[in-house]
Amino acid sequence: MYSWERKGDPMRATIVSVGTELLFGQIVNTNAAYLSQQLNLLGIDVLYHYTVGDNPGRLGELILHGFEECDLIITTGGLGPTQDDLTKEIVCDVLQDHLILHAPTIEYLESYFARLGRVMTDNNRKQALVPSRSTVFKNEGGTAPGFALENEGKVAICLPGPPREMTRMFEGKVKPFLEKLTNHVIHYRMLRLFGIGESQLETDLIDLIDQQTDPTLATYAKEGECSLRVASKRSSLEEAKAAVESTIETVKQRVGDHIYSSDNEELHEVVAKKLIQREIRFASAESCTGGLFAQTMTEVPGISAVFDRGFVTYSNRSKTEELGVSEETLARFGAVSRETALEMAEGLHRVTGCPLCIAVTGIAGPEGGTEDKPVGRVYISCYYDGISLCREETIRNVSRSWNRNFAKLLMLDTINKLLDGKEIE
Amino acid sequence: MYSWERKGDPMRATIVSVGTELLFGQIVNTNAAYLSQQLNLLGIDVLYHYTVGDNPGRLGELILHGFEECDLIITTGGLGPTQDDLTKEIVCDVLQDHLILHAPTIEYLESYFARLGRVMTDNNRKQALVPSRSTVFKNEGGTAPGFALENEGKVAICLPGPPREMTRMFEGKVKPFLEKLTNHVIHYRMLRLFGIGESQLETDLIDLIDQQTDPTLATYAKEGECSLRVASKRSSLEEAKAAVESTIETVKQRVGDHIYSSDNEELHEVVAKKLIQREIRFASAESCTGGLFAQTMTEVPGISAVFDRGFVTYSNRSKTEELGVSEETLARFGAVSRETALEMAEGLHRVTGCPLCIAVTGIAGPEGGTEDKPVGRVYISCYYDGISLCREETIRNVSRSWNRNFAKLLMLDTINKLLDGKEIE
Repeated sequence: MYSWERKGDPMRATIVSVGTELLFGQIVNTNAAYLSQQLNLLGIDVLYHYTVGDNPGRLGELILHGFEECDLIITTGGLGPTQDDLTKEIVCDVLQDHLILHAPTIEYLESYFARLGRVMTDNNRKQALVPSRSTVFKNEGGTAPGFALENEGKVAICLPGPPREMTRMFEGKVKPFLEKLTNHVIHYRMLRLFGIGESQLETDLIDLIDQQTDPTLATYAKEGECSLRVASKRSSLEEAKAAVESTIETVKQRVGDHIYSSDNEELHEVVAKKLIQREIRFASAESCTGGLFAQTMTEVPGISAVFDRGFVTYSNRSKTEELGVSEETLARFGAVSRETALEMAEGLHRVTGCPLCIAVTGIAGPEGGTEDKPVGRVYISCYYDGISLCREETIRNVSRSWNRNFAKLLMLDTINKLLDGKEIE
Repeated sequence: MYSWERKGDPMRATIVSVGTELLFGQIVNTNAAYLSQQLNLLGIDVLYHYTVGDNPGRLGELILHGFEECDLIITTGGLGPTQDDLTKEIVCDVLQDHLILHAPTIEYLESYFARLGRVMTDNNRKQALVPSRSTVFKNEGGTAPGFALENEGKVAICLPGPPREMTRMFEGKVKPFLEKLTNHVIHYRMLRLFGIGESQLETDLIDLIDQQTDPTLATYAKEGECSLRVASKRSSLEEAKAAVESTIETVKQRVGDHIYSSDNEELHEVVAKKLIQREIRFASAESCTGGLFAQTMTEVPGISAVFDRGFVTYSNRSKTEELGVSEETLARFGAVSRETALEMAEGLHRVTGCPLCIAVTGIAGPEGGTEDKPVGRVYISCYYDGISLCREETIRNVSRSWNRNFAKLLMLDTINKLLDGKEIE
């Protein structure tokens, strides 16, 4: 019987990252952050992160120290084929087990190397050693398997170090294992919002957040955007799903206008998907964002079916020559103006014939602002369905790259609202 | 006297990151990686990273544990004005000191809040408390000061948590403090290279790397690029500088063709600086990179003086309409071909009149490759000084975004070599 079942308290965990490259600062420890997020979602408290090099004495000591307060230790790294990979040996020492050769892993490794046309060396066989009493987790994305080992209410889960292998194993194998241990199922959805700050979002939902027992709500901020995680911990998946959906309905009534995805998609993915599905050809003309919009949209595979072309009209002359913005407009209202933005989008439509044309002009900074038009002022203009409109926005000036990114998000938000038939304030 | 001076061994350090948000996985711990890099550069071995929440008992225990093996502990976080910020109290407990009000910090905080037009609250005064025997480090970028405290050969250095404040304080205050402690000065330069893999770089320099005592050489790889750090640890800055320069001369004789910066600048910064200094107007036409080149160049403030415009000619029609690429060429050789690339750059010059015109067409993937023209094949064409040339390259296909980024680097490398009068293979 596990100790947390005896106590009825939340399970407590320590995350141990093994690898000298972490102590050299050659790589940033993203594994610890990922595992912390996931364990918190599962209702498990994380008390410590430890990082240690390939040193058996220190690793063993840290595992012992972690088990003083915690029931669960998750290690990453040190499962590889080389001499200095010692995590398995140490965990066996601490939890009183010994290593045996795991036949299914040997088979898997043999077919893995055969597929690559390589001979399996002896030190690769070392990867098929696992503690005799452990639950083995097959590594779908690499060679070293992971495992869970229990002794007297203490559980160690050992995972490979490469983030891609580790996250895949956690999602597919470790999460169900932990759900079974803790006798409950976690379901969550991540909503993504634009046009509302994290503190406003919190204010709008404060009663739900304060009263939360289940589902729980958590807000996150990320470069001008917000996320809201709605999570439920129940004894069955159906119950958890129903609870999450019902809370999301309430959230939608409050801040639905700002939600652009209920499935943790990025805004450009949402917009690209709609354009591709509805076969709407589009083009862009950018000044202050300097190609960031086009670059972001063309990250999406398959976008070439609808993206016709983009202009980065950085000079005034290029705005006139490429888009037919009149020299008079530029002289009278300036390159950063509602009038210029509108002529950019309309010119873009004239030149390309695309049914959707988006344009932006603004001041990205750090120089170039005036009292009248400060750094962060942008004009976003869109021609769609025979109508053209222009949004004037003043972005909170953080840095050149922040301002450019936010201007890009405003362009995407404009298209998204137009495609949904929503009003643009 | 400090214990490492007695032993003559390298100083040993533990990094302790304090913050519940780290244990929730809300932020990734970049501070530990930064400090590890810096300490290693200073010749200090890092044995452990610990992360702990705002819990005085656990924090105190970890600091004690760190001091069992280490002479130096660096903490980040927990210096703020709120109740749960307890790092200072704990460090005083461990190193037998007590907190006093630091008059210069009070003055600094008062002027800081006056400048913001805000009244300083009482809990902000808490930030001016420091251990009575400590060396105080002023926080130029925020409010909470840092400090170093010593007792019986053990040193604790406490730094604020926000990375911007922490790195600035480390660079300006902590580094000189540690150099004095360790009785030596470290000087290093970071060379940046393109067009050579990390393993080839290592091979070309293997004798220098193997025999290294001082200066030391370390290679790093980053998305298609390499860096080489040359560092020297001497008793005076002059000596260290001379040693580094002399080694760099040797390195240049071996791999000089691939070095684009000796000051850790990025390739696009190097290229942008040259174009701005020499007042060379330029324009770009991009297919597979989708605006990434234009977006990267326009990250540099002041580029508008020379960047005329960019085209993202994603469709065949746009290549013809905007750049005058002949329909026959497109039909006969395809959009991804040497012929199309050359007509893109030449057309770009015709349309814009810019003395430097760069164009790219290629297959970013994941779809669209053939046996003849696989994913990763790119053609980079440049018109400059009346001459046009084209490079055919096949990028090792990693992912769409990797391929696009590498194609962008090839564009930058092409311009850089042309501007330097170097041959393009």
